Amino acid sequence: MRDAFHEELDAISDSLVEMARFVGSAMGRATTAMLDADLKLAESVIEADAKVDDMQRDLEESAIALLARQQPVATDLRIVVTSLRMSADLERCGDLAQHVAKVARLRFPQSAVPRDLQATILSMGQLAQRLMAKAAEVLITKDVELAMQLERDDDEMDELHRTLFRHLLDERWRHGVETAVDVTLLGRYYERFADHAVSIARRVVYLVTGEYADEFQPESGPETPAASGETAAGSAG
Amino acid sequence: MRDAFHEELDAISDSLVEMARFVGSAMGRATTAMLDADLKLAESVIEADAKVDDMQRDLEESAIALLARQQPVATDLRIVVTSLRMSADLERCGDLAQHVAKVARLRFPQSAVPRDLQATILSMGQLAQRLMAKAAEVLITKDVELAMQLERDDDEMDELHRTLFRHLLDERWRHGVETAVDVTLLGRYYERFADHAVSIARRVVYLVTGEYADEFQPESGPETPAASGETAAGSAG
Repeated sequence: MRDAFHEELDAISDSLVEMARFVGSAMGRATTAMLDADLKLAESVIEADAKVDDMQRDLEESAIALLARQQPVATDLRIVVTSLRMSADLERCGDLAQHVAKVARLRFPQSAVPRDLQATILSMGQLAQRLMAKAAEVLITKDVELAMQLERDDDEMDELHRTLFRHLLDERWRHGVETAVDVTLLGRYYERFADHAVSIARRVVYLVTGEYADEFQPESGPETPAASGETAAGSAG
Repeated sequence: MRDAFHEELDAISDSLVEMARFVGSAMGRATTAMLDADLKLAESVIEADAKVDDMQRDLEESAIALLARQQPVATDLRIVVTSLRMSADLERCGDLAQHVAKVARLRFPQSAVPRDLQATILSMGQLAQRLMAKAAEVLITKDVELAMQLERDDDEMDELHRTLFRHLLDERWRHGVETAVDVTLLGRYYERFADHAVSIARRVVYLVTGEYADEFQPESGPETPAASGETAAGSAG
């Protein structure tokens, strides 16, 4: 009986890992599509998001069926409930990758990102993908040390976000308001994507240690990308 | 036994309604704080978000305890699991109200919103609050008709968002890039808040009818606030 339960639980965990890999890849391809102004790639990312939504619904159904059939308690129950929360995080990450791809499609045949910001956006995209790859690894290994690394990676994302805003608010900004709007939203999409990856790692820490990650480590980074008081972009809660 | 279960379920439902009222009020006060450049009010909203986080954790603990003790199946189980998802929506709405309040604090003693946009932002704030009040009513009444109303209200939010972007991208825009960044993010915060309210109503529809709201009604509004291809702000997933 318990073995059947743990097999089903493994299947749910595998689905989470698959979703994490899928959305990590989607964000990577969305970033490439945007920087290269590659319309076909952008459209493939936009279409692929339906798959993430399906994966999430399937995972939710499996989790509910598992709860109904096996009636887990204590830690096992908590793992199933936490899996549901994580699948919601990952579904949202799929949306964010799709948003980036939509910016790429909207500005085609131009790139939405001016040349002097391409390196920063590329770094944000790569870091977002790396964070999600680590979140997937944390899901597999339950490695608390690795989970804590994501907090530090997220500080790096905050720093990139600040760099982006410094460019935006530099009085020499010559790319106009439309590009400023695009870049503001892109920055927000990458930041939120990273937040969800961190949130997944934190949930694993809670399951393993029984403590909230933020209770034995100070909050990561400043609350806004501009501790200097420059911008209005709130960080995750 | 079942009566005890339904009493506990009622308590969870009451908590959801309380959270919805709390975050609706927070968003209303955050909007006032921003338009009036009222620092004290902004700070009270920022501080009050911790209460929403606590409510969410308490609700999660109650739901897990209820699952462990009463082992519900079928619809009862689905209601508990859905409550967990809704509480996550509401917790996020608290964050978004806090983000608006932080913009108010950041720009004090100025208002972050230029005069010619104050009416639009006020409308967005009021509509966000109204959507959340309706979501709370849907939670209480399980009224599917009322739930469908939220889809139409959300179309109105999309329209306000488009108005905002028309101002931003008008070549006569004279408020500079910093204000454009603020307004872009504010628009996004209100839009996401509305999305979460709609999502709560949709979940109630699913519980009552067994059908996803989007399966018997076309998707609400355009996917981006500018169907005209003006902006890069993706809508909710």
